[in-house]
Amino acid sequence: MAPPDATLHTVATGRAAETVAQHQNPQDLTFYSAWFCPFNHRVWIALEEKGIPYQYKEVNPYKKEEYFLQINPRGLVPAVKYRGKAIYESLVLLEFIEDAYPSHKPNLLPSDPSDRAHQRIWIDHIAKAVVPASMRLTMAQPNEQEKLETARNELYEALRKLQNEIKGPYFAGEQFTLVDVVIAPWILRDYVSAEHRGFKREDVGEGWVKYAKAIETRDSVCRTMSERDKAKVIYDRYLRGDAHSEAAKAVKAGRPIP
Amino acid sequence: MAPPDATLHTVATGRAAETVAQHQNPQDLTFYSAWFCPFNHRVWIALEEKGIPYQYKEVNPYKKEEYFLQINPRGLVPAVKYRGKAIYESLVLLEFIEDAYPSHKPNLLPSDPSDRAHQRIWIDHIAKAVVPASMRLTMAQPNEQEKLETARNELYEALRKLQNEIKGPYFAGEQFTLVDVVIAPWILRDYVSAEHRGFKREDVGEGWVKYAKAIETRDSVCRTMSERDKAKVIYDRYLRGDAHSEAAKAVKAGRPIP
Repeated sequence: MAPPDATLHTVATGRAAETVAQHQNPQDLTFYSAWFCPFNHRVWIALEEKGIPYQYKEVNPYKKEEYFLQINPRGLVPAVKYRGKAIYESLVLLEFIEDAYPSHKPNLLPSDPSDRAHQRIWIDHIAKAVVPASMRLTMAQPNEQEKLETARNELYEALRKLQNEIKGPYFAGEQFTLVDVVIAPWILRDYVSAEHRGFKREDVGEGWVKYAKAIETRDSVCRTMSERDKAKVIYDRYLRGDAHSEAAKAVKAGRPIP
Repeated sequence: MAPPDATLHTVATGRAAETVAQHQNPQDLTFYSAWFCPFNHRVWIALEEKGIPYQYKEVNPYKKEEYFLQINPRGLVPAVKYRGKAIYESLVLLEFIEDAYPSHKPNLLPSDPSDRAHQRIWIDHIAKAVVPASMRLTMAQPNEQEKLETARNELYEALRKLQNEIKGPYFAGEQFTLVDVVIAPWILRDYVSAEHRGFKREDVGEGWVKYAKAIETRDSVCRTMSERDKAKVIYDRYLRGDAHSEAAKAVKAGRPIP
């Protein structure tokens, strides 16, 4: 049987392709990336935001190639090799980037311990409430109306809780911080559930519409995003309930997203 | 209907009671704790390990009292009030304690960014693989033999992965670090699945037997643990598949543990 996404476009496109072209030289940090993956996108935004020197390498995580399993035994992007050491998991990598490059501004985590905790509480909310609800919504089938509506309402509720914490224009005010990085890839991809699952930003609230606009026009976010039509083959699988990513399998099985 | 755990012992006992008695005076940090909760236990171990001044306040998280929902809207322990600010989520709190008390030794996170990332990768593994499998095992009913065996094998597999990373006697070597703090409460409570679900430390591996011994005899771990018989009313509910904690409900529903 062919791997589930054999027809997948193999490289980044659009503005993301320009960014890839600028990051071909070896550096202390090698970024193993899949252009389409929202978890992966978080790390890419942080690297760009802080202007960290990195070498970009495209990986197809569906293939589970041996060389890549040596880097991340879970076989998932994002992964990083930093001075010979392998690091993975998007949220772990975001903390790592802050720790390893303290002189690269802006700091994406504030320096005050309570403010840092506040960031991490809402990152946890995105990971445990927003992302799973968003995936359940995309994967709910149109003939399962109740399931679809439940998922959409759960997503609205999770986003509204986040919305209530936004100082504007970004989560923590004028400064773009880690919470913005962590949610950004899902804002950029909400067109899928808007087109197919009745999701509307304005049904979350006015604050959400404004916030989403601020996020999706941020330069580091735009220049790491590929053309939408290239991702169609992936989202069609989710929409048909036929996705084979580890995240999709976890959502189906009612397990934590790995 | 009576709240699910109305018969629950209301205060810490044994060595934990002595520790509570020593932490009655107001401090910058107020620790809202439930003596029996393993997530809560993590934070308590860290506070004791580092000798941080804190005031202990017992909370019954099943009651969802209004004053407590003001501190943690999720209504869960552990929660902390620090100089008037509310912080919650066990893993967020562990990072907070490191950030807010840098001069209190030992440091539970190493200073090298790659080593910190390595800690966080394995903390993530405990959160996403060990804890859910452990809960599924306790909650599997003896007449669901296949489900029970699957959960036990998943738990063994998750623990073996962790075992392979242990330098000994503790996770990172001679020093007791955050990974040890995060897994410790589950090691102290594995007697429940050993007595009722066929779990054996030696079936994980020899390394695990030694590691578990090192963890459960660590002073900060012992002096925050209450008497086992007082927790029986809680574990009996899990064993009957009749637990009402938010974590138990999440495991039943196939959702992330909040």
